[in-house]
Amino acid sequence: MKGAVIHGPRDVRFEERPTPRIEQPTDAIIRISAACVCGSDLWPYRGANKIEQPTPMGHEYCGIVEEVGRAVTKVEPGQFVIGSFFASDDTCPHCRAGYHSSCQHRELVGGAQAPFLRVPLADGTLVAMRDLPPESLVPSLLTLSDVMGTGWFAAEAASVKAGMTVAVVGDGAVGLLAVLSARQKGAERIIAMSRHSARQELAREFGATDIVAERGDEGVARIRELTRGVGADAVLECVGTQESMQQAIRSTRPGGTVGYVGVPHGVELDVQALFFAHVRLFGGPAPVRRYLPELIELVLKERIKPGKVFDLTLPLDRVAEGYRAMDERRAIKALLRP
Amino acid sequence: MKGAVIHGPRDVRFEERPTPRIEQPTDAIIRISAACVCGSDLWPYRGANKIEQPTPMGHEYCGIVEEVGRAVTKVEPGQFVIGSFFASDDTCPHCRAGYHSSCQHRELVGGAQAPFLRVPLADGTLVAMRDLPPESLVPSLLTLSDVMGTGWFAAEAASVKAGMTVAVVGDGAVGLLAVLSARQKGAERIIAMSRHSARQELAREFGATDIVAERGDEGVARIRELTRGVGADAVLECVGTQESMQQAIRSTRPGGTVGYVGVPHGVELDVQALFFAHVRLFGGPAPVRRYLPELIELVLKERIKPGKVFDLTLPLDRVAEGYRAMDERRAIKALLRP
Repeated sequence: MKGAVIHGPRDVRFEERPTPRIEQPTDAIIRISAACVCGSDLWPYRGANKIEQPTPMGHEYCGIVEEVGRAVTKVEPGQFVIGSFFASDDTCPHCRAGYHSSCQHRELVGGAQAPFLRVPLADGTLVAMRDLPPESLVPSLLTLSDVMGTGWFAAEAASVKAGMTVAVVGDGAVGLLAVLSARQKGAERIIAMSRHSARQELAREFGATDIVAERGDEGVARIRELTRGVGADAVLECVGTQESMQQAIRSTRPGGTVGYVGVPHGVELDVQALFFAHVRLFGGPAPVRRYLPELIELVLKERIKPGKVFDLTLPLDRVAEGYRAMDERRAIKALLRP
Repeated sequence: MKGAVIHGPRDVRFEERPTPRIEQPTDAIIRISAACVCGSDLWPYRGANKIEQPTPMGHEYCGIVEEVGRAVTKVEPGQFVIGSFFASDDTCPHCRAGYHSSCQHRELVGGAQAPFLRVPLADGTLVAMRDLPPESLVPSLLTLSDVMGTGWFAAEAASVKAGMTVAVVGDGAVGLLAVLSARQKGAERIIAMSRHSARQELAREFGATDIVAERGDEGVARIRELTRGVGADAVLECVGTQESMQQAIRSTRPGGTVGYVGVPHGVELDVQALFFAHVRLFGGPAPVRRYLPELIELVLKERIKPGKVFDLTLPLDRVAEGYRAMDERRAIKALLRP
């Protein structure tokens, strides 16, 4: 089969690679219904993560089970399934505590920008739907595999509750879905930080009540102004740079929380400053698996439409164009159809 | 009057200084019943904080109100009061949210190692007791001014709940009272990290179920061993160094929390490591004022006896010996009697 492989910065190729097959009895092979390009795929694409060797790309996926290993009992061929970028056993102490992405037996899932994908620990990783979903819901269901679950975790990590004032740093797909998540959790005021008109518009559609275009010191000052000098109750950091993290911490009220889900790149914290800011910090790779059942229900009932983040749809063989469009911020997120 | 003044590293003098008087209409003057030396007083004593000029020392206090400014309405002369090291108005948004030590009008209270003390924002800062307490309870009541409130905040910040496994890093008075706080909040297992026999003994008396003498990598390995490889649900960091913070983070399970109350000195965090550890971080100067009413009740009912941390009592004029004894770890905490 052909799939997306990164060879170096800005060098993503759609090329022949081995069709995945069952390697462990706990594996499943799924036929991808839709895949996409993740904001975090841009880190290696932009050269921020080292690329040691040609690497199959893609870790957001949903599709139809094609084949399962002999130890798999909870999913079966023909079912529509969604999984996370970390395979997890769903039985270890970390999974039972709800932190599947720290599973003691976790494995990265990779190579989903392809027609077929091998998913390890299939019983623990995949959630099967009762029926095949309508085609129109597939993009929203796909987002649950990472980007929506990650925005949701940002809101959970920051303990967003009804009535709160929430600020969101980052207007990528995760940031926009963090806005949607905060709205869903009843935040009263949601301040989206964005200087990009199409993204501002989607942020408003997802529930943002205010837009702040300023960044850095000015952005912080603007948040303070909008909150009468107090700061936001919760700030959702969806970028992962030193600047965005500082902006998030400095926008938070004492006793408030920064939920951070942008994979930190070179972020260093002076803990004394954090101490005197009285700001709670929590983040990490989203435990997407925990949220799948709840979020699938919300999508099926059309209570949330996270698939709106896809503003570019491409056939899989044009995957490289998806990376380019996202890198140049021409697209928020690219959906790929095998 | 004479009080303690620090002139430089290891140079604390008991010397003449002006008797405090009402400066603002919101001030109160209190006659100190008991004061003490704080672990954080050792930072300047050891040269870790710069001493710009001779500075009156002491920020833990309780005593009898001597005089109040004309705007003070909630405390009156003759009452026994306890306050915090940060004066706070108890009315600003941060105070109302429970973070008095981040009060928008906060002022440091200093110079309590003396017979008299000026307390700003007296109405917001001081909590008056209905009756004069029995002399035997004064040491325990004094601890509520900082060290006990700080141990309590460590447990609150780390969301210690009934049934949890809690580790405490640091066997100073704050660490020992963090053990007591975790016990009071129903922790099932409390692992105190200490290599000092008198402190181990007091930790056990306060509720520690396990003692770990190892530090650094070995300390982390020991905690993992004691928790079947999972890590502690909550770790209370009561030191404030790079080593103690790393030890705390690495001892915490994914989804668990480090509550840190040791004032961080030169602590820098690699946020990517924190991200993948899935550890929540919260700390700061303890909002002691919030806890005073609750903790006063616990002391009066003798449900807690935090005054046991005082293993050295000195007349105020021998304050310098209190610093020496704590610096050399001959004493856990020195009580000073004017």
